[in-house]
Amino acid sequence: MIVVMNHNASKEQVQSVLKRLDKEGFQVHISEGESRTIIGVIGQNTKEILPKLAIQALPGVEKVVPILQPFKLAGREMKPDDSVFQVGNIVIGANDVQVAAGPCAVESREQILEAAWAAKQSGANILRGGAYKPRTSPYSFQGLEEEGLKLLAEAKEETGLAIITEATDTSNLKIVAEYADIVQIGARNMQNFHLLKEAGKLNKPIMLKRGGNATIEEWLLAAEYIMSSGNNQVILCERGIRTFEVATRNTFDLSCIPLLKHLTHLPVFADPSHGTGNWKLVPAMARAAVAAGADGLMVEIHPCPSEALSDGPQSLTPENFSIMMEDIKKIANVLGRSVGNSSD
Amino acid sequence: MIVVMNHNASKEQVQSVLKRLDKEGFQVHISEGESRTIIGVIGQNTKEILPKLAIQALPGVEKVVPILQPFKLAGREMKPDDSVFQVGNIVIGANDVQVAAGPCAVESREQILEAAWAAKQSGANILRGGAYKPRTSPYSFQGLEEEGLKLLAEAKEETGLAIITEATDTSNLKIVAEYADIVQIGARNMQNFHLLKEAGKLNKPIMLKRGGNATIEEWLLAAEYIMSSGNNQVILCERGIRTFEVATRNTFDLSCIPLLKHLTHLPVFADPSHGTGNWKLVPAMARAAVAAGADGLMVEIHPCPSEALSDGPQSLTPENFSIMMEDIKKIANVLGRSVGNSSD
Amino acid sequence: MIVVMNHNASKEQVQSVLKRLDKEGFQVHISEGESRTIIGVIGQNTKEILPKLAIQALPGVEKVVPILQPFKLAGREMKPDDSVFQVGNIVIGANDVQVAAGPCAVESREQILEAAWAAKQSGANILRGGAYKPRTSPYSFQGLEEEGLKLLAEAKEETGLAIITEATDTSNLKIVAEYADIVQIGARNMQNFHLLKEAGKLNKPIMLKRGGNATIEEWLLAAEYIMSSGNNQVILCERGIRTFEVATRNTFDLSCIPLLKHLTHLPVFADPSHGTGNWKLVPAMARAAVAAGADGLMVEIHPCPSEALSDGPQSLTPENFSIMMEDIKKIANVLGRSVGNSSD
Amino acid sequence: MIVVMNHNASKEQVQSVLKRLDKEGFQVHISEGESRTIIGVIGQNTKEILPKLAIQALPGVEKVVPILQPFKLAGREMKPDDSVFQVGNIVIGANDVQVAAGPCAVESREQILEAAWAAKQSGANILRGGAYKPRTSPYSFQGLEEEGLKLLAEAKEETGLAIITEATDTSNLKIVAEYADIVQIGARNMQNFHLLKEAGKLNKPIMLKRGGNATIEEWLLAAEYIMSSGNNQVILCERGIRTFEVATRNTFDLSCIPLLKHLTHLPVFADPSHGTGNWKLVPAMARAAVAAGADGLMVEIHPCPSEALSDGPQSLTPENFSIMMEDIKKIANVLGRSVGNSSD
Repeated sequence: MIVVMNHNASKEQVQSVLKRLDKEGFQVHISEGESRTIIGVIGQNTKEILPKLAIQALPGVEKVVPILQPFKLAGREMKPDDSVFQVGNIVIGANDVQVAAGPCAVESREQILEAAWAAKQSGANILRGGAYKPRTSPYSFQGLEEEGLKLLAEAKEETGLAIITEATDTSNLKIVAEYADIVQIGARNMQNFHLLKEAGKLNKPIMLKRGGNATIEEWLLAAEYIMSSGNNQVILCERGIRTFEVATRNTFDLSCIPLLKHLTHLPVFADPSHGTGNWKLVPAMARAAVAAGADGLMVEIHPCPSEALSDGPQSLTPENFSIMMEDIKKIANVLGRSVGNSSD
Repeated sequence: MIVVMNHNASKEQVQSVLKRLDKEGFQVHISEGESRTIIGVIGQNTKEILPKLAIQALPGVEKVVPILQPFKLAGREMKPDDSVFQVGNIVIGANDVQVAAGPCAVESREQILEAAWAAKQSGANILRGGAYKPRTSPYSFQGLEEEGLKLLAEAKEETGLAIITEATDTSNLKIVAEYADIVQIGARNMQNFHLLKEAGKLNKPIMLKRGGNATIEEWLLAAEYIMSSGNNQVILCERGIRTFEVATRNTFDLSCIPLLKHLTHLPVFADPSHGTGNWKLVPAMARAAVAAGADGLMVEIHPCPSEALSDGPQSLTPENFSIMMEDIKKIANVLGRSVGNSSD
Repeated sequence: MIVVMNHNASKEQVQSVLKRLDKEGFQVHISEGESRTIIGVIGQNTKEILPKLAIQALPGVEKVVPILQPFKLAGREMKPDDSVFQVGNIVIGANDVQVAAGPCAVESREQILEAAWAAKQSGANILRGGAYKPRTSPYSFQGLEEEGLKLLAEAKEETGLAIITEATDTSNLKIVAEYADIVQIGARNMQNFHLLKEAGKLNKPIMLKRGGNATIEEWLLAAEYIMSSGNNQVILCERGIRTFEVATRNTFDLSCIPLLKHLTHLPVFADPSHGTGNWKLVPAMARAAVAAGADGLMVEIHPCPSEALSDGPQSLTPENFSIMMEDIKKIANVLGRSVGNSSD
Repeated sequence: MIVVMNHNASKEQVQSVLKRLDKEGFQVHISEGESRTIIGVIGQNTKEILPKLAIQALPGVEKVVPILQPFKLAGREMKPDDSVFQVGNIVIGANDVQVAAGPCAVESREQILEAAWAAKQSGANILRGGAYKPRTSPYSFQGLEEEGLKLLAEAKEETGLAIITEATDTSNLKIVAEYADIVQIGARNMQNFHLLKEAGKLNKPIMLKRGGNATIEEWLLAAEYIMSSGNNQVILCERGIRTFEVATRNTFDLSCIPLLKHLTHLPVFADPSHGTGNWKLVPAMARAAVAAGADGLMVEIHPCPSEALSDGPQSLTPENFSIMMEDIKKIANVLGRSVGNSSD
């Protein structure tokens, strides 16, 4: 890190900063410029985070600029090769673009089975569906809970699709992990550090959705929580960030895909349904996500969107999903990739 | 709510929307304008939330505009008078502006006692200090946990200050509630709905900090989760929202104070330490918050900010805190209020 | 629009609103719900904007909700077919995806000619280059002004490329329009209403870049300024909005492309160079923009990015641009489109 | 500035950066850390801005971190004492808090005179009122233009108030400056660099409103444009920034007041009318702004807000303005200041 002193910092103030850094075990390089003193601090990565902010509180310090990236296990520097995970007979993070499709929430046996078959027929390999639902209002549908998990298991049995579903608290993580092939941690829980640590004790891939106000650095640090607890199988999923623009539910930040490919070895998915909140925009943004280099997609489909208990307006009908899948297969081909089981 | 049809919606599409609304038990008013049909929907408040989005998915619907506020128990319409809570011998939400002061995290017996006495001497009635700390990086100090709670209890015993400290998960809520006079739910957990529901089963005031990307409506809906689970003692605390401006840690949204006073009967606090992230700005913004009508303040103080294990740069020294308290007492007087025990 | 009264609004207050609306020539529908009165207002579109806010200031009014889109000429309702413009032998807004490439600023004869040939060889039809540069700091390079325009003219003469360059004020609009085939209005000037009105008097296509904090509605209203002054040839260009995310220069809002295709008949371009600020991300986001349905791209290229006087870090080398163009031709083909002169 | 190399940058890449810096005339300090090389760059302030970004485009460079503040004339480092300007018999930037009040737009002789007398009677020294109005929609009222300026002159003649009014383009700056005692540059024009440079040639105070998406650094660089053109009389005015929160028109960033007091010697005003967009919130936020240390306020008042042609909902009635003024006089007194002519 770099410590920038005030232009009128006294010699004593500079000495006091140097003393403190020495006490913490850091080496320093001092640059005395025309207008101020700048102190370069060299030391161990893991300790750097600790004193950064405190030093900013010392008299005469103008600002402290961190230099190194604070995530280690998630960073590409430590592991240059892409991480690849096997989920049943599906491979994530390799050449195939994987698609998870299904309803926002599991609502009934009929609904989830119909959605599962529609997903499978168009080439998706993974069924999504929430059993535990985080909802903004206490008066909204909160999910079928364990009953929902059982219906997902039935759909898996029937169709052979892998299951992704969300754990919303440390209290339901265990049961969710019993049923799920991939455990989802939702956007609102991206910085639920207890949940992250417990997810780090599982031996299953975790899909970590980006928080609606999370920077990419914070997102990778959330992945670091899971990884530093022992689980390296983290899939990142962009689903839009909150901005001033209200014409879409979120602002779908697709630039994060190529950027993450530079910063991390972890696979990156994109969720155009939450990213836009509007089914009319989903096919175009699904194409864009694959063109930008996404390793997979999460898409909401519903047999009858206008009857959905949640997220109806952003759900595709099976017909529109089928058309979308045809398009993204062609886009994937341009990049030398294929989509899910499209090669079977 | 209002359903706005597309300008070229067919009669069948309008009929289909009317049928669906009828099925859900709503009454409607139809306005056929020059350019499109608009359907006014009248019905019970609690059911309104449910079908809002789904109707948006019906063919021919351009948009659905909600009219009524979705929070009920938290709203001033249902309860016009200010909510007032008693915490020991402290009254919150009435004429006295209450100040909670203390370190970000409990670090040691000496540190917390020193901070507690400094808080008390300047007129604060409540001691803050985190035992369970949500930290962005897994490599940062995570708190002393139960040991920290015991130190807070000791500080309470010695000084007579009430204790506010944070529960970060359903797994530590119970023990935190044993030690705390006011249980804090932090910004990152504002939409941790499991935690909110469990907090709603306590018989203690809950301080609900605003999420860094939470709208005021979402914040009041989070309060509604606590209240609809049985606990009406919710204190709201503004602590800054995330915006594009990086010169401050957050953007401290003080306008929410007078706005909340219109919308809700709940007491409103403000936390200028997190709101700005910079101790040099804290006294000015503490004055501003009281001038804007805050019922209380949360302020970080530390015996030695540059040695703090977290949030050093935004912590006031006891001396600066004392000066700040003198100023806010005068500002409170202008509004016909007093500060904490300043009248003793 | 819809006028929502307070839950405790008096009958006199409702009457006063009705009287005012009647005075302005509007028809009304009154819905008296259980908890409040809601007034639907029907009338001419162009007048709607005027009294909207003022009515909100009447006693007893809780809020005013606009229903109709405030842009008329730019909206697809009035003109369902796509607008198509001819620029020399180039067609914009039709099946061909057009690419404008070139340096941020014209710096020298050698630089602009080298860039122009590189653009042309890879299949771009339009040369971009700023002669008048809006720069955040007064100490940054401000452009070659008229000398830069002459160099663009020379590059056009040599290569046959069409020219797009920016007018930054009413004082240089005329001379820019003499040299440019397409006049650019930059993001910072999107709400420079004098410039918009004057651009509306030209008989040339105007490329209107989205302001960094402009909503899509405001952007279309800016287009409306140009169109209502007489010039219907407006090209919209997304170039990123400002959000909390600082890992990229802007947040590139590609979802606006399919959304604009619903709202307006105007052609939509995308600028991945400003959208990301990082040349490493440009090829991926160029592919994504075409996949999302963009009618064209604006891309910064520079013979030697590290010597550029502005925007070096977001400029592609000619080699990387050439690779990018090969990819987007394939993506365009998937959508049944071709790229610029790629068919020659 | 600091140049951070990639962890796997080659020696040749480091040498190439050093060569380029040497060519630009900079001195360097090299720190070879365990994981990467960091280059500290020392040199003249004004040149620093130029090559910053270009160096980021060199191979092997991870990022470039600027250290020094890019504004010079506006910075407190160069001029530690507060700037104080005399406008007629009013002093701005000294002990008195000055209040500018009046309607958003001049609408008629009667309206502006009534507003002017109301402003004066409550203790305001400056009359605000727009003659040239930047409006989001081309169909909204655009101002009375020169006729409006003449009405302001008449109001000045009658009441003795100083006049502040907005120039919206280089084409009307001259005539505005003839009538105005303080020339306002509005939020949308904060980065209209032509207008800033021309305003820099005037010998009159310029009130520079903060752009709705401007960082504090960009705002001070906009002031630098005016100052580097020769006019040091710049007043900054905070009026809210655009964020995701839609419950208020803007998010009123009062923390910028104490922060600006550290960074710059220029006087700082605040505009709670635009900052909130809601007259009910204006008195509380006016109090808060003064408590935070504002040198002045801009407040919209209107004899009849519900008849206003613009900004009615954020305009105070003369009665409410009068109550607000009584409160802020008391708040100013707490800080040892007085309000405008309140001492006469």
